[in-house]
Amino acid sequence: MTQRVVGPGPTGSAGPSRQFPEAPLSLSSIEGVAASGVACGIKESGRPDLGLLVLDRPVSGAAVFTQNHFAAAPVRVSRQHLATSGGLVRAVVVNSGNANACTGRQGLDDAREMCALVARALGCPVEQVFVCSTGVIGMRLPMERVRAGIASALDSLSKTAEAGRRFHEAILTTDAFYKDASLQGSGFAVAGVCKGAGMIEPNMATMLAFIATDAAVPPEALQRALPAIAARSFNSVHVDTHTSTNDTFLVLATGHRVVPEQAWSEAISSVSRRLAWLIARDGEGASKVVTIAVRGATTDAKAREVARHVASSALVRTALYGNDPNWGRFVSQVGNVAGLARPERLRCVLQGIEVFRDGEPTAFDRAIAAAAMAKEDVLLELALDEGKGTAALMTADLGPRYVEINAEYTT
Amino acid sequence: MTQRVVGPGPTGSAGPSRQFPEAPLSLSSIEGVAASGVACGIKESGRPDLGLLVLDRPVSGAAVFTQNHFAAAPVRVSRQHLATSGGLVRAVVVNSGNANACTGRQGLDDAREMCALVARALGCPVEQVFVCSTGVIGMRLPMERVRAGIASALDSLSKTAEAGRRFHEAILTTDAFYKDASLQGSGFAVAGVCKGAGMIEPNMATMLAFIATDAAVPPEALQRALPAIAARSFNSVHVDTHTSTNDTFLVLATGHRVVPEQAWSEAISSVSRRLAWLIARDGEGASKVVTIAVRGATTDAKAREVARHVASSALVRTALYGNDPNWGRFVSQVGNVAGLARPERLRCVLQGIEVFRDGEPTAFDRAIAAAAMAKEDVLLELALDEGKGTAALMTADLGPRYVEINAEYTT
Repeated sequence: MTQRVVGPGPTGSAGPSRQFPEAPLSLSSIEGVAASGVACGIKESGRPDLGLLVLDRPVSGAAVFTQNHFAAAPVRVSRQHLATSGGLVRAVVVNSGNANACTGRQGLDDAREMCALVARALGCPVEQVFVCSTGVIGMRLPMERVRAGIASALDSLSKTAEAGRRFHEAILTTDAFYKDASLQGSGFAVAGVCKGAGMIEPNMATMLAFIATDAAVPPEALQRALPAIAARSFNSVHVDTHTSTNDTFLVLATGHRVVPEQAWSEAISSVSRRLAWLIARDGEGASKVVTIAVRGATTDAKAREVARHVASSALVRTALYGNDPNWGRFVSQVGNVAGLARPERLRCVLQGIEVFRDGEPTAFDRAIAAAAMAKEDVLLELALDEGKGTAALMTADLGPRYVEINAEYTT
Repeated sequence: MTQRVVGPGPTGSAGPSRQFPEAPLSLSSIEGVAASGVACGIKESGRPDLGLLVLDRPVSGAAVFTQNHFAAAPVRVSRQHLATSGGLVRAVVVNSGNANACTGRQGLDDAREMCALVARALGCPVEQVFVCSTGVIGMRLPMERVRAGIASALDSLSKTAEAGRRFHEAILTTDAFYKDASLQGSGFAVAGVCKGAGMIEPNMATMLAFIATDAAVPPEALQRALPAIAARSFNSVHVDTHTSTNDTFLVLATGHRVVPEQAWSEAISSVSRRLAWLIARDGEGASKVVTIAVRGATTDAKAREVARHVASSALVRTALYGNDPNWGRFVSQVGNVAGLARPERLRCVLQGIEVFRDGEPTAFDRAIAAAAMAKEDVLLELALDEGKGTAALMTADLGPRYVEINAEYTT
């Protein structure tokens, strides 16, 4: 299975850039998927803000949602719909520009109405419609515009690849660039798009990801596989401790190709990881993605705890921004994890250069290490000597633009 | 008991400023304490870098140390000495400019030699000497200079108030200003100094604090009281997740005044809290200290977890820097704490202004709230409705200077 890459990007507008090569397949390239994206005035900028995916029949859908106690209305409604429909999805309606979060009972009514409008047009049960929102929180959706947008999106549904790109455009908020990925081969295809910036985007940090495959997968199998796929991709992006009110990751399997479980699961996982990398890369002011790879912990959970301590440290992330091989900050963060048995055995390897072992820094060349850090993709390996537990988290560096953006933005 | 305030500061040099009023008492104002501070060349700047406190007899001493697995050599030696001596301290020797951390067996030998030099001069057991270091890590102490510094510090010991200020000066590293506090009244006195900048100072974030009182307190009583005092002061400063290799908080009680336990314990606690506030205030690039006060949690531990989630969020801290009443970021961080029973009952009060309740923002005036945040001391109250657990953490806002400092600094 190979990732074919073409370019350049779909728009020359002042919106998101095409910073990375465009994925060869869009969501609507997947058999059974039609898409559309329109501007209905939720965003003051007039940019696209309502997207629709319609399946040619009810297909398998599985999702992972935010764990935040203040989960937004669309999250609550979609979770309930997926449970009631038994994991069958006929349509996905998404708006950007307004998150419909912290909007009380009215917000739930509005999210349900969005689903009802789509269900009525398609003649399907309302539970087969999945809804997502992203944007400012604490404000009611402008439902007049949303209704007009849904009507317009229903009218402009198309199976062209371009329609999938319009859907993608309609789910974006402050994304600096388009985030898509696809895989094709072995008789089936996977395509995905997402929005979000390193979990730290000012617009309440929402991450939305949609992946579709033409593989035939029963709903239960899809739901069973999804937590592990999410853990290795979107839940391994750790730019901030913040998970949003609206985070949602949805996978649809349209059932047109018979594929072994290992094949579809690996393909979805691969597309997910690429999308997650793009989210980390879009951390505000970020200049690179740093993978914190921990091994040798007593358990995977302990390895993840160590990685999280390092990835979430502002001191570590500013050092990464400054290309500073600051072993002291990395090591000291590991030292803050409770319950390590042999911390004195810690080895710290930065871009392949061993910088710390046996409780002391090595005699590494600081200039060479600094040069090795000046890359878009950086690997920091932390090897304990306590067991077989491993974990890998992606974080972004922390530069002055982060503070500029976050201090100026208002919900 | 009243805090008398005098000013201005002791030095007009290019070092730390006297940003806050000088404490009326210095450590050497306390009966039984002599002090000195000298420059012996550990710091390239030529500024004072070796401080000494000598007690007129072995006195009660109790300490709280860093929990970091990579605790520095002086931390290991002092912990051991305090245990061996039964909590008796005759002298405290401190160097700045070099942390003697990640220095292996040689580092332990060097820390022990520092104690031995002082013990020999005073004719006391080596276990009655307490040692601290702060500064760069991973480099051996320049012991020739340290030896000369100790000799010079022993020669210049004095009981004048000025000697205590020289000691204070000798323990500082990148502190932007002097940090001292004292209390006098009810027949006894407490004085303290500390160094450190919001746990995030580039120089490996070390916090050192020394408090002396002339109250008569048995070593066991002092050690018993100290954890709670530390929890409400230095351990309530949460600017970063980082605790350093060298953090140390030492209290000495010289035994000249008979005082009820409640009185000395409250006085030490009060001085500790003031010193902790000064540390939070000196967060790099910080313009204010924000106290995150949580109440109504099931337990104090759960309240602390909530406060920590909020205080450690870069998103929250940048909003605080920008005087942005960004209830969404505060609330969403609370929503990330696992196991809340009734998050929908959360109330969020910023500087006395209720900004969020019943799952939705209130109709507060954004301009008034923003103006209320433009203070050096800000209070963010988060009221749950699940029990009687409370906690209060201090954090600093996160401004562009933080990134500048931390991206440029190298261990």
